[in-house]
Amino acid sequence: MQTKCYGKQTQAGSLVGRKAAVVPRRIAAPRVKHVQAQAAVAAPAISTEVVDKCVNAIRFLAIDAVNKAKSGHPGMPMGCAPMGYILYNEVMNLNPANPKWFNRDRFVLSAGHGSMFQYALLHLAGYSSVTLDDLKSFRQWGSVTPGHPENFITAGVEVTTGPLGQGICNAVGLAAAEAHLAARFNKPDAPKIVDHYTYCILGDGCMMEGISNEACSLAGHWGLGKLIALYDDNKISIDGNTDISFTEDVAKRYEALGWHVITIKDGNRDYDAIRAAIAEAKTVTDKPTLLKVSTLIGYGSPNKANTYEVHGAALGAEETAATRKNLGWQYGEFEVPEDVYEAFRHAATNGAKAEAQWHADCETYAAKYPKEYAEFKQLISGELPEGWAKALPTFTPEDKQLATRQHSQTMLNSLAPVLPGLIGGSADLASSNLTLMKMFGDFQKGQYAERNTRFGVREHAMGAICNGIGLHASGLIPYCATFFIFTDYMRSAMRMSALSETGTIYGELVPGVRGARGQRALWLCLAFLHPGLPWLNPLASAAVAWPACLAPLLPAVMTHDSIGLGEDGPTHQPIEHLASFRAMPNMLMMRPAGGNETAGAYKVAVSERKRPTTIALSRQNMPSLPGTSQEGVAKGGYTIKDTEGTPDVILLGTGSELQLAYEAAEALGKEGVKARVVSMVCWELFEEQSTEYRDSVLPKSVAARVSVEAGSSFGWERYIGWHGKHIGIDTFGASAPANILYEKFGITTKHIIAAAKESLASTKA
Amino acid sequence: MQTKCYGKQTQAGSLVGRKAAVVPRRIAAPRVKHVQAQAAVAAPAISTEVVDKCVNAIRFLAIDAVNKAKSGHPGMPMGCAPMGYILYNEVMNLNPANPKWFNRDRFVLSAGHGSMFQYALLHLAGYSSVTLDDLKSFRQWGSVTPGHPENFITAGVEVTTGPLGQGICNAVGLAAAEAHLAARFNKPDAPKIVDHYTYCILGDGCMMEGISNEACSLAGHWGLGKLIALYDDNKISIDGNTDISFTEDVAKRYEALGWHVITIKDGNRDYDAIRAAIAEAKTVTDKPTLLKVSTLIGYGSPNKANTYEVHGAALGAEETAATRKNLGWQYGEFEVPEDVYEAFRHAATNGAKAEAQWHADCETYAAKYPKEYAEFKQLISGELPEGWAKALPTFTPEDKQLATRQHSQTMLNSLAPVLPGLIGGSADLASSNLTLMKMFGDFQKGQYAERNTRFGVREHAMGAICNGIGLHASGLIPYCATFFIFTDYMRSAMRMSALSETGTIYGELVPGVRGARGQRALWLCLAFLHPGLPWLNPLASAAVAWPACLAPLLPAVMTHDSIGLGEDGPTHQPIEHLASFRAMPNMLMMRPAGGNETAGAYKVAVSERKRPTTIALSRQNMPSLPGTSQEGVAKGGYTIKDTEGTPDVILLGTGSELQLAYEAAEALGKEGVKARVVSMVCWELFEEQSTEYRDSVLPKSVAARVSVEAGSSFGWERYIGWHGKHIGIDTFGASAPANILYEKFGITTKHIIAAAKESLASTKA
Repeated sequence: MQTKCYGKQTQAGSLVGRKAAVVPRRIAAPRVKHVQAQAAVAAPAISTEVVDKCVNAIRFLAIDAVNKAKSGHPGMPMGCAPMGYILYNEVMNLNPANPKWFNRDRFVLSAGHGSMFQYALLHLAGYSSVTLDDLKSFRQWGSVTPGHPENFITAGVEVTTGPLGQGICNAVGLAAAEAHLAARFNKPDAPKIVDHYTYCILGDGCMMEGISNEACSLAGHWGLGKLIALYDDNKISIDGNTDISFTEDVAKRYEALGWHVITIKDGNRDYDAIRAAIAEAKTVTDKPTLLKVSTLIGYGSPNKANTYEVHGAALGAEETAATRKNLGWQYGEFEVPEDVYEAFRHAATNGAKAEAQWHADCETYAAKYPKEYAEFKQLISGELPEGWAKALPTFTPEDKQLATRQHSQTMLNSLAPVLPGLIGGSADLASSNLTLMKMFGDFQKGQYAERNTRFGVREHAMGAICNGIGLHASGLIPYCATFFIFTDYMRSAMRMSALSETGTIYGELVPGVRGARGQRALWLCLAFLHPGLPWLNPLASAAVAWPACLAPLLPAVMTHDSIGLGEDGPTHQPIEHLASFRAMPNMLMMRPAGGNETAGAYKVAVSERKRPTTIALSRQNMPSLPGTSQEGVAKGGYTIKDTEGTPDVILLGTGSELQLAYEAAEALGKEGVKARVVSMVCWELFEEQSTEYRDSVLPKSVAARVSVEAGSSFGWERYIGWHGKHIGIDTFGASAPANILYEKFGITTKHIIAAAKESLASTKA
Repeated sequence: MQTKCYGKQTQAGSLVGRKAAVVPRRIAAPRVKHVQAQAAVAAPAISTEVVDKCVNAIRFLAIDAVNKAKSGHPGMPMGCAPMGYILYNEVMNLNPANPKWFNRDRFVLSAGHGSMFQYALLHLAGYSSVTLDDLKSFRQWGSVTPGHPENFITAGVEVTTGPLGQGICNAVGLAAAEAHLAARFNKPDAPKIVDHYTYCILGDGCMMEGISNEACSLAGHWGLGKLIALYDDNKISIDGNTDISFTEDVAKRYEALGWHVITIKDGNRDYDAIRAAIAEAKTVTDKPTLLKVSTLIGYGSPNKANTYEVHGAALGAEETAATRKNLGWQYGEFEVPEDVYEAFRHAATNGAKAEAQWHADCETYAAKYPKEYAEFKQLISGELPEGWAKALPTFTPEDKQLATRQHSQTMLNSLAPVLPGLIGGSADLASSNLTLMKMFGDFQKGQYAERNTRFGVREHAMGAICNGIGLHASGLIPYCATFFIFTDYMRSAMRMSALSETGTIYGELVPGVRGARGQRALWLCLAFLHPGLPWLNPLASAAVAWPACLAPLLPAVMTHDSIGLGEDGPTHQPIEHLASFRAMPNMLMMRPAGGNETAGAYKVAVSERKRPTTIALSRQNMPSLPGTSQEGVAKGGYTIKDTEGTPDVILLGTGSELQLAYEAAEALGKEGVKARVVSMVCWELFEEQSTEYRDSVLPKSVAARVSVEAGSSFGWERYIGWHGKHIGIDTFGASAPANILYEKFGITTKHIIAAAKESLASTKA
């Protein structure tokens, strides 16, 4: 193994009497350089004794908060406190007074259970978003210090973490966003206006998860030199020592993935080794760097360090006292000595200077490159360019029948020229998902300014990387694509996308759900949407303090959306997937029919700032039906074909089956049965319409209803009721040409007509 | 890099004029030894010219079948044909006359899109399950040759593959099952009765997927020496050359994972290199081996080899003609020369001998170890031991309130002594999921006979490995566990579990779904369940030919099943997960309330042979309510508390919220409102009851209904209708103690009572 190694390892036995190793030093604080890549990593003018105190302050804030909450994870913060101190007070370019400063270094706590690590650091570094009182209400209702870091709750938290392995993928996305914007906007003869590092701490759990291997393989391929990951190698996970399930050579694996790897033997005490490793990492500009940092989980706890006991449970009074004694910590619960606060002012002071310098740099740049700067400013504002939606084409029934995946390609290529933030791609299915923006090349090492991203067969990492790109909050609009069935591989990343932006809660998702729960939801919703009304919610006090995050969320472009994909068979045919995303909070699940609805779906997906959109697209052709429209899509459900007077029966459909409903309605009409056709393209949006509107589309008085969708019936009872029928498929599919499958599974106009008559008869019975 | 390397690489330019390299040889066929691990790898007495023909026969069957279907993937079979020939006709211990022979070597095509590779080989090797006509109906309705290999359709296919990366995980499971049974039953002084290898071919896509890294890390940790994976390193994926997204050093990564790695430079022509590598792999008994085999995708096609064009599309007439010419193939479409069939008889002849020898060995073993042999025989019969279910305890309302995860621990530890096949564990949450069988140690290298498996933080691989263990079809009953939320990480493996066992189709899943689709489903269902009635279904002819696969499917033990987990917050709180699994075909989704229902859930999960069960379990305590029972659970939904006469309102609940419904009913009763309480523990089972039974539990005449479940309302309309109310949560949760969350989100008895009155009023309006 060729990996470089810093320092000597802490012995597990040397826990008690932890002094030594680090020689007290005084080093002049470096002048913060605005060209950050060149900035030296060096300690400010703070004695090692004080650094020790700062490090212990992190440890004890975590210990005390977890004790008070009687719940949480003290072990990680205790072991990683030195890394935390060095990152937040020496290394990272951050401005606590403006957590959203564009050019800040990004930090991701992939080991999200160690949230108190981050909260303690945010507090000590001077973020007003996390007060000492906030630390005291760790994990309590309405606090800004929830169990796992949530970016939409706590200013200074970049991404929401907890589900292991995803944070490092988000970090890859953040670093990719930086590389992209730097390549697009920086000029050789002007100050760099995009120039920051992305740091990430990840643990054994993150390392075991396959998603991290996917993303780190891509990061190595892309050569993201400004990504620096610190692996908290403490050899303990929930089930005990990692030697029961995790004995691979991680350093060698990361070298194989194309990373620069540095080993730090004693992450508990050897500050200089950490500093030197970070400095070295910065010199490696063509590879991401992994710092493999040996630590003791729960460092300082005489009886619980290096055991799983300290991972996810409070230390308790007795062991806390023993730890205080062991680490020589003479301060009370939640007590932070003034010299610790004083030392941490370094972060705020330097951050303010760095931001000021950046603004000055921007002015210099703007003077030289006014056009580029205007584009940059517009982009990072997060506002969409005026009139962008006009680029979306409209269609008539006379237009050629096409698959909606083809329409999707048209939309992406119509939008790419007018949306400078659009960036994305597919998990090795670009030619099938039709996701290439034809005017751009591939985002690759050496050509980061391009916008087609090649994710390889790595769906889960793709989702999480896109989340990171979106959460860079620089106006980039990431999209990603695969076959709809493979959302099963990336579901957690999609859920995190839905969760992590706003936590917006639907007040009226479910008809029949009113009462206190609905009110509560509405109340929370209002509190989030109107942060100016702090009386609405305890959370609002935090929300007021920082600007809304405007990062757009990923539209997920999911083609091959039903058995209509045909011969690939049941392993590739989604059945329950529409239902499963309709059930997911904060996710817009779209299944457009034809060109106008695909345009409408993109219009919604790009416009939405607070929730992700999943667009299910067909492999097979269909017409752009009369009555379909972008405006209709915006309402989620709307009538595309009506009858005179009250209809006898309502036919509801989506996507490729809407045409079947349309044909059935025409046939029924000839038989004297008045059938209305409703496109239910997006249930979530429909539920948000007024009761009046919803009742006008689906009047309760018309109980005869048939829904048609080449997927599970699950959930359709909401709209078709007890008298309704569903034409779809509740079993796995089969391998055969698509038209045969539709016939065999009975998804045909004939079956809709029969079901409509049955339903009608049932209402009269 | 220290990996060993065999042979010289084929040049892409050397496609035309492919003869050479392999010198014709005649080697005496080795006597098949029953101690297979010692069997030498050597070619039978077949000239290299004939081997060439056999290899080309595989290629052209794939080409012709894909051409005929106008759909499929010829590139992989064309590149991997030499590996296929050597495995099926020289290396593997298989008996085509008995595809289910217990001691056969297992083969997994992880690159499942190359299904014609496997079908061609099964046909040539003499499996009656795949005739020439079957190859001609590749990818057609009712054929036994679907687009991707499906174990429940085609005898000789061990596992269903297609979703990339999962096949290699299944292979890890198959190899783990072999290691386990070998350690339990083989004796030093008797013939080995468990002794086979597991082979797997995986491609670039499998390599990129994170799930494969997870499973291969475990395989390395476990030191599964009898797992031999062949990596089809053809450097082409759907989007083109893998250098656009996949440039890592795979060999080095696998070394880091603890594998033995061998490189084969020319997998297209250098048969001896493949043979030598497999022989070497067999000498490495303490590590799995990866053969990194360089091939050309679409080998032999002059214009399409080594391009993505040959990956997933028919070659077409012109290029097929050119390929015929290039490879010197003088035979017609689907024509197999007799000497090829003749050469392939080796497989059947040796297989029959090997099985006969194994039976003889079993007799020798049985004479010496009658007790062990009886246990072995009983186990591999797949039949459950008589009376096993009596081990499940029953509970009364007076019993201590416990979390259902604690009851689950009781069930596992009650069943472990009576179910010799029970094996499983958790993804690093054993202490939280409570899944340890206390009488057993850990399944580890050197102690494979133990039954607690430590999967590490690798949910997706855990699921797929368990699928592999189940599909070993040796009576092992794998279970796996994590927090319910992390089913998002393993969803595809769970779906494959639901798909891959039977393909059983529910005839009556959805009320209101009758008509042709329902009939079709029923028809298919019957065809599968009654393979003796071949007139029912074209598939049945295949089903008749081979015994039903009795591998039990994994019960997934999913704890922390709602916001009831409290402080960990929304990243850890499932909301939509119950709905998402209820929508999944062939999955039994259980949410038991208290001890009796947890026992009932396990009874169903273990009894079910044709579909997997997911059991959602609580972190928080609850009573074992009066009226709850194992018998009730078997019906899926049942009345636990009734009123005299027709009820005014029906309260439906599951899991930890059933007690709230119970309390609400009591309170309503005191106010003169007659409320029935129904436990809806498993919707799928309820739907399978007779209409009469279902109507008796939920009479349509009682339209006033309230459902209560700490999760999404999605889907509940099926049971509560338009007048019903749902008490649950359709938003993301929050971080706070559980009792606070229930209060804040309005999931309380008080809210149920109010909702019941509202619903009642609504029915009267």
